Amino acid sequence: MTYCVAITTDAGLVFCSDSRTNAGVDQVSTYGKMYHFQVPGERQFVILSAGNLATTQAVISQVKRDLRDNAPNSLKTMPDLSEAASYLGEISRQEQDRHASPDGPNAGASFEASFIIGGQIRDDKPRLAMVYPQGNHITTSKDTPYLQIGESKYGKPILDRILTAATSLEIAGRCALVSMDSTMRSNLTVGPPIDLGIYPVDSFALERMRFEEDDEYLRSLTRSWNQNLIEAFDRLPPLAAETELDLE
Amino acid sequence: MTYCVAITTDAGLVFCSDSRTNAGVDQVSTYGKMYHFQVPGERQFVILSAGNLATTQAVISQVKRDLRDNAPNSLKTMPDLSEAASYLGEISRQEQDRHASPDGPNAGASFEASFIIGGQIRDDKPRLAMVYPQGNHITTSKDTPYLQIGESKYGKPILDRILTAATSLEIAGRCALVSMDSTMRSNLTVGPPIDLGIYPVDSFALERMRFEEDDEYLRSLTRSWNQNLIEAFDRLPPLAAETELDLE
Repeated sequence: MTYCVAITTDAGLVFCSDSRTNAGVDQVSTYGKMYHFQVPGERQFVILSAGNLATTQAVISQVKRDLRDNAPNSLKTMPDLSEAASYLGEISRQEQDRHASPDGPNAGASFEASFIIGGQIRDDKPRLAMVYPQGNHITTSKDTPYLQIGESKYGKPILDRILTAATSLEIAGRCALVSMDSTMRSNLTVGPPIDLGIYPVDSFALERMRFEEDDEYLRSLTRSWNQNLIEAFDRLPPLAAETELDLE
Repeated sequence: MTYCVAITTDAGLVFCSDSRTNAGVDQVSTYGKMYHFQVPGERQFVILSAGNLATTQAVISQVKRDLRDNAPNSLKTMPDLSEAASYLGEISRQEQDRHASPDGPNAGASFEASFIIGGQIRDDKPRLAMVYPQGNHITTSKDTPYLQIGESKYGKPILDRILTAATSLEIAGRCALVSMDSTMRSNLTVGPPIDLGIYPVDSFALERMRFEEDDEYLRSLTRSWNQNLIEAFDRLPPLAAETELDLE
């Protein structure tokens, strides 16, 4: 499994992904799931991937080939982020169909993959889109300034509580790491190293950070969050007054 | 959808369930999902239900009929909680099979339901079990002193952080409500009123509370939790020091 989240705020974009892949619990590997593509000063794209590893690798390879070969359709030629998401969805769909044709030897097997693509093309603002396994895509809204793929539920509540369009990149980045921490704690198949990418609006430069399992900041964040949550819980109004039982 | 959680600690048992059922988003109703059965002074059972409403209602009806008719197998006659869970699973399995036989008119449709059953039989300690749609069941462990059915992921992280065998019933009850709050916030199909049941060990008496949507305690809990979480987040070590960008 995988967990990836991308956030858009007025200040820019934040991307966060884990690096664990598994086929059953005994075949666990580490693969980054964050890919960066750029035309310096012109366009920046980050792609996050989840799902079948063979599919996601094949899709990323095709995206790279199209760039290298100056293909008519590539991340260099797409007029906007929505078209780039359609292009990515089309490649993903083709790659899945190649292996999972309904009358072929793999009929019934699933090679599904999901992607988040985000970035900025000059003269447009930064944007995000999530590409479904079916190839279509959705974007963020003012009320939901983030997108998730993979094991998304454990880490969703904190995003809902913290993020707005006005959130700074520092807070959005921290929120993504906390969301990742909640997910890792509850699901063994999501794990470090954690990749974090921060893209300030109009910068046309991505800052990438990688947090290993023993990274000092990640450990202090995890420890503080656990401690702060317990304290936050302790300060809630006690239930005891509501009941007739002596609950202590 | 539904969210139910049950907790076992050294001090007793806690049960919590929402009351929303839906078949599509336009057919939403309120049904309690917590059922209490007792032989005063002898045995106490609480059943929480999730899944197909027709199945869960039919199962609960059968459990009641068996009690009323003094059937050879009923919650009155089960020697221990594990047998009671098997009995419940058997009824559930039969009820599902009746409607979903593979060559009948409903072939392919799902009538699945899950249950948590908990309680105490005299001379045994309080116990919990979760009954899968397939009819088999699991119980808690020292490290995982809770069971969930329904929409369980949003509310899991707080349970993992707070609950141990030594947790008081007050804290376990509050933790169940906070877990419910996170779930309601992220999933529209889980909603109030919220039923809370608290069973102190060896008491052979269940205290039941119902929190309506405008309940003062529930509202103050929700508001405090949101506020405390934001403060807990604000006190985390800032990410800014980790990066070379000016993120504020």
